[in-house]
Amino acid sequence: MTQLPLDTDRLREAIDIDRIQRRLDDLWEIGRTSAGGVSRLAYSESENEAHEYLLEELPDEYDVRIDSVGNLFATRWPDASQTILTGSHLDSVHNAGRLDGTLGTVISLEAIEAYNAVVDEPCCPPTLAVFRAEESARFGYHTIGSRSALSELDAQTLSATDEKGIPVWQAMNDAGFYPGDLSEPTIDIDATVGFLEVHIEQGRLLDETATNVGVVSSIRAPVRYQVRVEGNFDHSGATPMNLRKDALVAASEMICEIEGVATANTADGDIVATVGDLTAVNGAINTVCGTVEFPLDIRSTDSAFRAVVEGEILDELEAVANRRGVTVTCELIDESEPVALSEMVQTHLIESAEVAESSYRTLPSGGGHDAMNFQLAGIPTGLLFVPSIDGVSHNPNEQTPEAAIDEATRTLAHALGRVGHYYITN
Amino acid sequence: MTQLPLDTDRLREAIDIDRIQRRLDDLWEIGRTSAGGVSRLAYSESENEAHEYLLEELPDEYDVRIDSVGNLFATRWPDASQTILTGSHLDSVHNAGRLDGTLGTVISLEAIEAYNAVVDEPCCPPTLAVFRAEESARFGYHTIGSRSALSELDAQTLSATDEKGIPVWQAMNDAGFYPGDLSEPTIDIDATVGFLEVHIEQGRLLDETATNVGVVSSIRAPVRYQVRVEGNFDHSGATPMNLRKDALVAASEMICEIEGVATANTADGDIVATVGDLTAVNGAINTVCGTVEFPLDIRSTDSAFRAVVEGEILDELEAVANRRGVTVTCELIDESEPVALSEMVQTHLIESAEVAESSYRTLPSGGGHDAMNFQLAGIPTGLLFVPSIDGVSHNPNEQTPEAAIDEATRTLAHALGRVGHYYITN
Repeated sequence: MTQLPLDTDRLREAIDIDRIQRRLDDLWEIGRTSAGGVSRLAYSESENEAHEYLLEELPDEYDVRIDSVGNLFATRWPDASQTILTGSHLDSVHNAGRLDGTLGTVISLEAIEAYNAVVDEPCCPPTLAVFRAEESARFGYHTIGSRSALSELDAQTLSATDEKGIPVWQAMNDAGFYPGDLSEPTIDIDATVGFLEVHIEQGRLLDETATNVGVVSSIRAPVRYQVRVEGNFDHSGATPMNLRKDALVAASEMICEIEGVATANTADGDIVATVGDLTAVNGAINTVCGTVEFPLDIRSTDSAFRAVVEGEILDELEAVANRRGVTVTCELIDESEPVALSEMVQTHLIESAEVAESSYRTLPSGGGHDAMNFQLAGIPTGLLFVPSIDGVSHNPNEQTPEAAIDEATRTLAHALGRVGHYYITN
Repeated sequence: MTQLPLDTDRLREAIDIDRIQRRLDDLWEIGRTSAGGVSRLAYSESENEAHEYLLEELPDEYDVRIDSVGNLFATRWPDASQTILTGSHLDSVHNAGRLDGTLGTVISLEAIEAYNAVVDEPCCPPTLAVFRAEESARFGYHTIGSRSALSELDAQTLSATDEKGIPVWQAMNDAGFYPGDLSEPTIDIDATVGFLEVHIEQGRLLDETATNVGVVSSIRAPVRYQVRVEGNFDHSGATPMNLRKDALVAASEMICEIEGVATANTADGDIVATVGDLTAVNGAINTVCGTVEFPLDIRSTDSAFRAVVEGEILDELEAVANRRGVTVTCELIDESEPVALSEMVQTHLIESAEVAESSYRTLPSGGGHDAMNFQLAGIPTGLLFVPSIDGVSHNPNEQTPEAAIDEATRTLAHALGRVGHYYITN
């Protein structure tokens, strides 16, 4: 039986930050763009190339399995009756940074190797898992690989198309994968005692609080609307202020109200509400704009509380429209359920951070990750965050402090031992 | 000596509304777009074609002169020592309606012919004037033809390029015109006793007050800024409300303040302020937007009052930015002077509207017109508006009531007599 905690000093010695950085550097060259980032879209040549690179980095002792949609599973103990998965993804958005998905994949491999260096006879050995197509940048649907692995991919996603009209299934075929019966999981769910993922926070909380490791308590989910405000188009010079039905001023007042309602509710629960884009239809310097569209994104870890705030916001939009004599229509375009991550795994992650002498705190995740699907499939799941410097994400300037990479790798290695041990002994 | 007023009944008989409508219909076919409007950009083939159409419509007795930039002047009395000009333009914006410029041109010809029908020996006969390139849609500069005629075209305008990189001078050459020395006017300014133009209002005031003819008192001029707001880009799900520097909410608050300041000042003077467009740079549904740009257009007939309101608005933008911890920069991109039109001509236009039994009111013009340049050149100038139904302008749905076309044509014909007579007798 594995002795806990794993030997802290030997783990520390086994982890090679330079190797992590070299692998990040190497992957940074796969799919480089002229705009200074990388583009490794789902099922693209460059995603394939990144997977091939990783295969070559694996020690010879690894047993590698590629499932029917291209997810990669690698372990030194293929015959173990149970395993704990850890990993992330290698695809990216357009002109992405060097960390999103990639960092979690590289850290997971390093933590597994460190674990292997200190554990001779693991009771529940780890498996590296690298999922395909986590980002929605190409097809508009996220976490395609992990959902396929867990038999949660629906026909709508499989037939979604990219901007060239290529559907997901054809992109899979073109990359050499033939999904077959997606009602069957591609992993043995019963033999999977847990899933652990590391990711950059994509927000500012860890950076602002100088914390190197975040233990995610739950994953916020959005309810989203496309909002359309219609007033009258008029000549900007020729139309007195009192004869206007200015859709852009109305939309502006709505955006201020959205911020106001969300901020007023932060004391009572977890909530963020955002208008991140706006289109002034046929807008011009010499026009009173008659039609404005904007997306509204409201997220919380608590769907009941989110619904309360959502209701307040929609009432406020209607009130602004009525006061101004314009119309507003709010089309629901997404409504996802928040996911609370395993409290047991959170406890192990916190204890692991303490043993690893890492600064840490708990926090919610603002974005969705492959981890979410594992928790939803009933597999105890943990998600560790490292800081995004200045909150930068999905951008070539993504950065995280080297100390955070080190502490997160050690925390993950300890947690592989603790979560596995827990399952064998309980 | 011409007897005033001109014979009202004979004028009324001479004016043929069906002829006006037929000419509008014919011109509506020149430059038609698949989007349902017309595009007759400055110095385009279709602007040339519209001028050729008009030449064919002119009675044989007319003497026609095309100046060095393509402006058209036509009169039955080329040897008169003095003349009063009336007309407008035939170029248009992209996908324009049937009225802007075109209506004024067609009404002017009809009013001249009605005048000719009742006046045997005019003391100061009218000349039809059709100017090139009034709209800024192609080159970003307006009233190129009338400014050339008055030797007010500057080198900057002449070298401005369209979206294909073709400069104004080359477009003139391509259309068959060679401007030569633009420091010389192409008309005899001393022999020009006045300029009268008819145009759709492009605003809602006449339509809302059911008035058929507007006598313009002065032309509002804009001061314009390009405003840039910079905060931080963040992940919409991952960034708590209190850690955001949301450029789009900041810009929204600024837009509300701009409306508020302008509206609060309307009791004290003529003022309109508008944000007619907005760009959320790299905006997305899942992003807190870090950079927003919008144009600001402030207009008044009183430049001193405008400067007061402008100062209040700029202070308010700075205050919003300071409160929110974002930066705002306001780049001045245009500052034009309002033009008060001749009070003498306004008096004649009002008396003419009364004789023509037309409903009328005075009002400011929100947009610039060729008329503005004539007043600035010291030529007594008048501008008559007809209603824009629902304020629609620069749009295929431009409409004006037929009764307004009739009353404006009669008012203009009477005014041609009164303004000319005034000069001969004073």
